[in-house]
Amino acid sequence: MRTIKLTIEYDGTNYQGWQVQPRGQTIQGVLEKTIKKITKEEVRLVGSGRTDAGVHAFGQVAHFKTNSKMALHSMERALNSLLPQDIVIRKVEEVNENFHARKSCKSKVYEYRILNRTRRSAFHYPYAWHIPQRLDLKEMKEATRYLMGEHDFSSFRSVGTPTQTATRKVIRAEWKRGREGLIRFEIEATGFLKQMVRAIVGTLVEVGRGKIRPQEFRKILESKSRSIAGPTAPAKGLFLKEVKYTE
Amino acid sequence: MRTIKLTIEYDGTNYQGWQVQPRGQTIQGVLEKTIKKITKEEVRLVGSGRTDAGVHAFGQVAHFKTNSKMALHSMERALNSLLPQDIVIRKVEEVNENFHARKSCKSKVYEYRILNRTRRSAFHYPYAWHIPQRLDLKEMKEATRYLMGEHDFSSFRSVGTPTQTATRKVIRAEWKRGREGLIRFEIEATGFLKQMVRAIVGTLVEVGRGKIRPQEFRKILESKSRSIAGPTAPAKGLFLKEVKYTE
Repeated sequence: MRTIKLTIEYDGTNYQGWQVQPRGQTIQGVLEKTIKKITKEEVRLVGSGRTDAGVHAFGQVAHFKTNSKMALHSMERALNSLLPQDIVIRKVEEVNENFHARKSCKSKVYEYRILNRTRRSAFHYPYAWHIPQRLDLKEMKEATRYLMGEHDFSSFRSVGTPTQTATRKVIRAEWKRGREGLIRFEIEATGFLKQMVRAIVGTLVEVGRGKIRPQEFRKILESKSRSIAGPTAPAKGLFLKEVKYTE
Repeated sequence: MRTIKLTIEYDGTNYQGWQVQPRGQTIQGVLEKTIKKITKEEVRLVGSGRTDAGVHAFGQVAHFKTNSKMALHSMERALNSLLPQDIVIRKVEEVNENFHARKSCKSKVYEYRILNRTRRSAFHYPYAWHIPQRLDLKEMKEATRYLMGEHDFSSFRSVGTPTQTATRKVIRAEWKRGREGLIRFEIEATGFLKQMVRAIVGTLVEVGRGKIRPQEFRKILESKSRSIAGPTAPAKGLFLKEVKYTE
């Protein structure tokens, strides 16, 4: 039995998220079907975590077990020739049998894109949150610093999530101004709660709009209460950029 | 009667090109309908030229006549709030009554994008021609130099085009290597024949593949015969970047 690790890029626009659902196409569902065509086996693909409907990925990671003896480069070519155009396998690796896409994960990197200019874009609209009002990036950067380190992120998780520890460690969090009004937020943490990045971005945007001061943002984080934080930013601006492992 | 000039950005993926067709949505059709909603008039929108199905634009230009007294910024806002997400008005200007989007045009700039790497992209696929084989950009650049200046471009027009002079002047033509395998071709000319850029790119790619030498490319241009040139590059990689006017 071999353990195969896939690194996957996808445009989430036309999918009901990562995880197999009773209704609608999902990334996991399409991948499992395609792997089956190649290996002739029913495989269970384990992702590093779910992504919501509309969320994209440059480097989602997943693993599966197989008896197939196919060479890795042949598997990569076969998968990419059968998969739809909005899903691409970036890498196929054989890993230690103990490797687990979710449990072995050391940290994850997410990127969130905001198009901050009056005019909307015919090209960015499925990949960025369009905010026509001026955002004070300096204030947003100041508030962002409070995210660094280990915290209980209960203020920034989706409501009604099954109980589990909400403590995560943020390793890096930064805003970068790009061309033509594009702003990128990049955050790396040991793990993320459901909709955590989108809740953080939604609240930081309130800081940028002058509705919440950076010091208040800190209090929101410390309050561990989702209800006083800002709204959840739209899914379409979010990209799972990288999943890191120790090996 | 006012003459209004529009500068338009669009993602052509979901349209049957610029010009109104008996079947299917077109950019011109959607714009005329939207202008009608605002001005309450039947307007005829005149574009700088047609773009084929799947071709995109950063700066297509069109004009129409109207009796509406609406302020230009209100018109821009109203249009952008009513238009679908893949069409955006970049600019609304009032121009001299003699202005004509096609006839007053001095030059046009097109961009063509090629994704030249083994792996396809989940994000670039509607906006670039994916060529996994290695392209010799040096040879392509050498051949490109022969395009400069005034030529009869009969070798690079779509077959069966109604007779008209095929002489055009190329002002600029250059290839630039971008990030992660993206190659951009930018060409400015006093005018373009139907599918001229796509025929040029298709033939230059044959040069890049080593199938046509730069000197042969020159002969193809001089032959004024479409049949010996290369294939027509796919529409999806083409962007109408700018339309220039003297004023």
